[in-house]
Amino acid sequence: MGLLRVVKIGGNVVDDPEALDAFLTDFVALDGPKVLVHGGGKIATKTAAALGIDAQMVDGRRVTDGEMLMVCIMVYAGLINKTIVAKLQALGANAIGLSGADGDAMRAHKRTGSDIDYGFVGDIDHVNDTFLGGLIGQGMVPVLAPITHDKQGLLLNTNADTIAGEAARNLSGGFQTELIYCFELPGVLFDINDRDSVIPQLNPTQYEELKEKGIIAKGMVPKLDNCFAAIAGGASRVRICQSTALSKLSDEPGTVLVP
Amino acid sequence: MGLLRVVKIGGNVVDDPEALDAFLTDFVALDGPKVLVHGGGKIATKTAAALGIDAQMVDGRRVTDGEMLMVCIMVYAGLINKTIVAKLQALGANAIGLSGADGDAMRAHKRTGSDIDYGFVGDIDHVNDTFLGGLIGQGMVPVLAPITHDKQGLLLNTNADTIAGEAARNLSGGFQTELIYCFELPGVLFDINDRDSVIPQLNPTQYEELKEKGIIAKGMVPKLDNCFAAIAGGASRVRICQSTALSKLSDEPGTVLVP
Repeated sequence: MGLLRVVKIGGNVVDDPEALDAFLTDFVALDGPKVLVHGGGKIATKTAAALGIDAQMVDGRRVTDGEMLMVCIMVYAGLINKTIVAKLQALGANAIGLSGADGDAMRAHKRTGSDIDYGFVGDIDHVNDTFLGGLIGQGMVPVLAPITHDKQGLLLNTNADTIAGEAARNLSGGFQTELIYCFELPGVLFDINDRDSVIPQLNPTQYEELKEKGIIAKGMVPKLDNCFAAIAGGASRVRICQSTALSKLSDEPGTVLVP
Repeated sequence: MGLLRVVKIGGNVVDDPEALDAFLTDFVALDGPKVLVHGGGKIATKTAAALGIDAQMVDGRRVTDGEMLMVCIMVYAGLINKTIVAKLQALGANAIGLSGADGDAMRAHKRTGSDIDYGFVGDIDHVNDTFLGGLIGQGMVPVLAPITHDKQGLLLNTNADTIAGEAARNLSGGFQTELIYCFELPGVLFDINDRDSVIPQLNPTQYEELKEKGIIAKGMVPKLDNCFAAIAGGASRVRICQSTALSKLSDEPGTVLVP
């Protein structure tokens, strides 16, 4: 089958109605089969605060307790997912919003650590490529929320970057798959203070070198680890760019990760 | 194809975790293809109150304003729908939760009246029998939330009884369809104060007579109007019974509506 694009948008787009509308218009204009994965944004935090639910911190790490999980399910799999799906339907894409429980789309297990309580956070075991591939084959556009399930009745809060990477990896058996991460910066930067210093291309060896030198650090490391895992698992390539670059993919914006 | 059961549960089941678990166990045990439609329950009202959103009343009628619509989307299409789907998955049913926007499953228009502002309330135009029939044909169990869309990007709060009736009607082209309304009472009663006075069977002529005499009144009227509309539209029959009766359908519990 043809090229499948798995596109991930983060909270910065989800939180900004104008940016979201512009992004969704560009997304619908992309030729061929596609999957959208969305992050959570600040709406869950705001809603939790309004409900009087305090963010639980353990050792400086945010923990998804039972009350926060309920808010995440409401906001991610409910409000954000359905708002995006309704907008895509209006733009002519036959979108279908899915949490991991729907059609057993994304199965995970509750993260456990020897010392750390992560709360209701899921690490993905499997993305259901048969089910998603079937929907895509019918011309539908799956819209994946960052909520998974453990097939034992438990819903789990799950990182959207990981979902996008695992979806691209699991779907690469049936499709040539390109993973596109939209984020705030124009790409992976040599110099974090210079937005013009985009690294146009990166392979695993170059990535290791830049990590050792501390040029790539902090939040970029888990993101890029996901990307290279997707490539190692069969995705053809991964692009990291701004959401506004989606309409200009032929210009090769951002950073392209290659095997 | 075989008998398709469309089962509707209301807020009284949704609000009670033990009753919900018992109901879902019985629901999964039903042979053959099935669809579940769920109502809202009190969680949306409680969540709205906790968020400081007051229920808007106009002429004694509750209005779904923009803020309340957001809460309904969160709670109905998010929390309740995904909780039910995850539980059904754990019980072995391949459930898929859907709002009306997902796969264009249920399309509606915003209700308008000459004098009355109903707010963001949708009247159903179409249930997508091709899409839902395809899922059912794959052995999946659609779980429909009481949220529809207008295909213009607007999500709408929609009565779950109506959704169940319209789903049964629209799916009756491809399936012999039985609609089962689970509610608080053991059936339609001759005497509202006597739970033993269940009317075992009711046809349209008998219904009109009982309405004229005032024996069937108030909330039961729109419910039964939905039921007879489903029958007029092709559903084989409609049963109105308690949720606890689902495991004893061979005993013919509750009231059966016939053409």
